[in-house]
Amino acid sequence: MTIRNLVMAAVMVAVPCAVQAQVVVKHIQDEKSPIAKGVWAGDTFYLSGQLASPVTPADTTKGTAADYGDTKTQSASIFAKIEAALKEQGLDMKDVVKMTVFLGPDPKTGKLDFAGMQSEYVKYFGTKEQPNKPARSAFQVAALAAPWALLEIEVIAVKGK
Amino acid sequence: MTIRNLVMAAVMVAVPCAVQAQVVVKHIQDEKSPIAKGVWAGDTFYLSGQLASPVTPADTTKGTAADYGDTKTQSASIFAKIEAALKEQGLDMKDVVKMTVFLGPDPKTGKLDFAGMQSEYVKYFGTKEQPNKPARSAFQVAALAAPWALLEIEVIAVKGK
Amino acid sequence: MTIRNLVMAAVMVAVPCAVQAQVVVKHIQDEKSPIAKGVWAGDTFYLSGQLASPVTPADTTKGTAADYGDTKTQSASIFAKIEAALKEQGLDMKDVVKMTVFLGPDPKTGKLDFAGMQSEYVKYFGTKEQPNKPARSAFQVAALAAPWALLEIEVIAVKGK
Repeated sequence: MTIRNLVMAAVMVAVPCAVQAQVVVKHIQDEKSPIAKGVWAGDTFYLSGQLASPVTPADTTKGTAADYGDTKTQSASIFAKIEAALKEQGLDMKDVVKMTVFLGPDPKTGKLDFAGMQSEYVKYFGTKEQPNKPARSAFQVAALAAPWALLEIEVIAVKGK
Repeated sequence: MTIRNLVMAAVMVAVPCAVQAQVVVKHIQDEKSPIAKGVWAGDTFYLSGQLASPVTPADTTKGTAADYGDTKTQSASIFAKIEAALKEQGLDMKDVVKMTVFLGPDPKTGKLDFAGMQSEYVKYFGTKEQPNKPARSAFQVAALAAPWALLEIEVIAVKGK
Repeated sequence: MTIRNLVMAAVMVAVPCAVQAQVVVKHIQDEKSPIAKGVWAGDTFYLSGQLASPVTPADTTKGTAADYGDTKTQSASIFAKIEAALKEQGLDMKDVVKMTVFLGPDPKTGKLDFAGMQSEYVKYFGTKEQPNKPARSAFQVAALAAPWALLEIEVIAVKGK
């Protein structure tokens, strides 16, 4: 390599890097849902609020409704769904920087079942295997969008180096 | 220093540089409001929660209060205001990466009117002209800051490349 | 252009750049709390939702509960705690880009005490000494995680240049 080529190589490397480089935005979405599953903005991934999946799906032949369980059960479902959604993006629970927990009233007490949520949360955050904990806010809302939902959780995850 | 060394120095400098470049923060605010209309942090624009504008303003000569309409009507007003606020910043609905919808109880039912909000949302997101959809959380709060408000919507938009 | 000039040009261009540098993520957390106090993601600091500290702590010898005061009193405590938490990170109230205020029902009225919160907010934001105002959403939730809590406030702050 001549010195001139080395210089040109240096210039080539230098040029595209730009002080105010705009971030790459990527919407992770499909045709079915009116909202994105999540959106990448640079290294930041905004995951849509997650509701639980049913423990027992509805059975139209028996005429039974889906069973989503209590707050603890729904929390277990939601945290597993969050972990799976993050893994699809090459992220993991350790990358969660912010979490917001929207708890609905527990049908038995009319109050939020904070302990039910928390008992599942601690299986994923601040453990020996995964010591990272997110910044978090958690409070009771009047109701969730789905009548059977007892909580909804959203997270922001960041692909750190 | 030889030219060769200078070249190598240039290459060495180019690779690790600006890892910790600080972002430009810009508060879009005026004297009248105690909060910013929105704040830029690098390529990210945080828009304050938006409430609807009245369909019919208050008329002091007639002694009539402002009319803000139902959830669907207020949603139409809010989405139009969000679009206008983003355009002032050189952004558009396609740049919305995260949305949070705070729905108050509908005066007729006491429950959130999710469908009323959604019917206006789909006019702006996931359309043929504007296919992008944001990450979103939506739930029912106990009440909004203004007694007439039936919902409030906040968004984060990112100037992507 | 001489080779020397080309090299210098390469150095000049190279210094401020960084193409797809991943951000540094840092969790500010201790053993005691199940959540982080806050998390840095690049220049962005996500502070966990803050609740008030008691005006008068519980007294086990007298058997009296802790006194947390009304919304205005709790707001004063929370804003002071937010300021202190930011200062620990080399940040200040001027760096707050987004704030979300979760107000519980006031025990006397059952409604949010927006004015009580706002009277403390304006001491920190939009003042002569600190003119910056954050983007903000504020609304009434059904309840906070602690039964005595009348509000919770979370902020995002950015280390700008």
